[in-house]
Amino acid sequence: MKFISFSIDSEPCYGTTTGSTITNLTNKVLGAKTLKELISREGISEAKKYASKNPGNINYSEIEFLPLIPDPGKIICVGLNYHEHVVETNRTIEENPVIFHRFPDSQTAHLQSIQRPQASTHLDYEGELAVIMGDAGSHVKEKDALKHIVGFSCYNDGSVRDWQQHTRQFGMGKNFQKTGSFGPHMVLAEDIPDYKALSLETRLNGRIMQSAKLSQLIFDIPLLISYVSKALPWRAGDVLVTGTPGGVGAKRKPPVFMRQGDKVEIEISDIGILSNQINDEIIQH
Amino acid sequence: MKFISFSIDSEPCYGTTTGSTITNLTNKVLGAKTLKELISREGISEAKKYASKNPGNINYSEIEFLPLIPDPGKIICVGLNYHEHVVETNRTIEENPVIFHRFPDSQTAHLQSIQRPQASTHLDYEGELAVIMGDAGSHVKEKDALKHIVGFSCYNDGSVRDWQQHTRQFGMGKNFQKTGSFGPHMVLAEDIPDYKALSLETRLNGRIMQSAKLSQLIFDIPLLISYVSKALPWRAGDVLVTGTPGGVGAKRKPPVFMRQGDKVEIEISDIGILSNQINDEIIQH
Repeated sequence: MKFISFSIDSEPCYGTTTGSTITNLTNKVLGAKTLKELISREGISEAKKYASKNPGNINYSEIEFLPLIPDPGKIICVGLNYHEHVVETNRTIEENPVIFHRFPDSQTAHLQSIQRPQASTHLDYEGELAVIMGDAGSHVKEKDALKHIVGFSCYNDGSVRDWQQHTRQFGMGKNFQKTGSFGPHMVLAEDIPDYKALSLETRLNGRIMQSAKLSQLIFDIPLLISYVSKALPWRAGDVLVTGTPGGVGAKRKPPVFMRQGDKVEIEISDIGILSNQINDEIIQH
Repeated sequence: MKFISFSIDSEPCYGTTTGSTITNLTNKVLGAKTLKELISREGISEAKKYASKNPGNINYSEIEFLPLIPDPGKIICVGLNYHEHVVETNRTIEENPVIFHRFPDSQTAHLQSIQRPQASTHLDYEGELAVIMGDAGSHVKEKDALKHIVGFSCYNDGSVRDWQQHTRQFGMGKNFQKTGSFGPHMVLAEDIPDYKALSLETRLNGRIMQSAKLSQLIFDIPLLISYVSKALPWRAGDVLVTGTPGGVGAKRKPPVFMRQGDKVEIEISDIGILSNQINDEIIQH
């Protein structure tokens, strides 16, 4: 059973899916109106019970996907967390994880557009594993970290490379509107016995661009959860985006940037495929 | 007339103040429950009318301040935006503004604690002018930027210096819980005919540590508003924190870091004084 956020007739909803049909959980379990609220109210087990008694009656053709968590309090991203990517960017491994941030405003969803902004042609993909957190609070110990994970999903940490290099701070290039794609769904942590066995692949127009195992993370997930929690508490629905493998477009020779009509897919084994088409931003006047 | 966010008996509220008493506006104007909602509903004029008919009946002794906007969608901070601060940090002026981000979770309020985290003793102040935005959207032209500003306030962009230097990304040192103090109140843009004439002073235990005029900003406010809007839309209640002058504690000889019991004040002329005491984090087990 997987969890998704979606809209019907522009009404935001969330629910569960077994693959073919969707059970709408909105306001059905503990009064939770969003997946974030459900997590916050510790309603996952309750939701599973409800969904098993109420088989899905909504078809995928009736919905539009929303970002898996549309409104996370925090999206914490990790840079330079696979060796191959460290090498291709001419960096060295740091003593501490490289952390940057995304705003919810920058997100987009499965089968929605990733937007190539008017401000740049240097739009690049970054396939990553996303971790969805429970209300873990501050000062989480590494040994306790995994039990605070609610689920996993795919993230395309779409990056505008020239703006990322405007200064030494990555943030501007990581926060363009509709560049961070999050989904398609959340697989519960209890259904992923060992995330290190997961493998990740990014495909651009069908061509494999990135390929890695989650066992290759330089800073592993428990360390990341613990490190961040020394500064800020983890709240329900917060997202940890764990870093991208080697093979980004900007470091290829010649560089490959995403353009109108391109199709980009992030596939993570046992999780699913996050698929987006690139569309140019249209400026409204 | 100034706007504040506050709580009474732990109930979050917002209202106006003339200095001695407060008019509670919560749910009184256009159904807005927060100052952000009021801004979003373009209710400032309506709120002024309501407040002029309903003189304040709440005393300051009855309230606790909240961060001026407790839940902004975005807090965009600017680094290295005064010459003296660029010089003291041994940097050079960049071609583009240095942008980093804060999460709402990292905020605190006037007369509340700024928290010295257990993870570090390198807690530093940064006095700054905060700009509170209306729903300006994307691609704002510099010439139109000022009209999207709703008001101004003070910000203490409290920084944990060793964590800020863990990697080249500033974010971790800029996002410790209860380190970003925002308030005490918002002065409307219409009441500040020329923000460049404002002067800013930071005092630590009464000693002047930073002193500057807003005319000294390297990247001026219209440019900052326009630059960011090429990536992300400005939404109602978003906050632009415009950078700190020279004189930070970390670059003094010997360095000065804030400790339990210290009192730090940010004063901006025609706006007010933001005052905080430093208290050590107590880890809950």
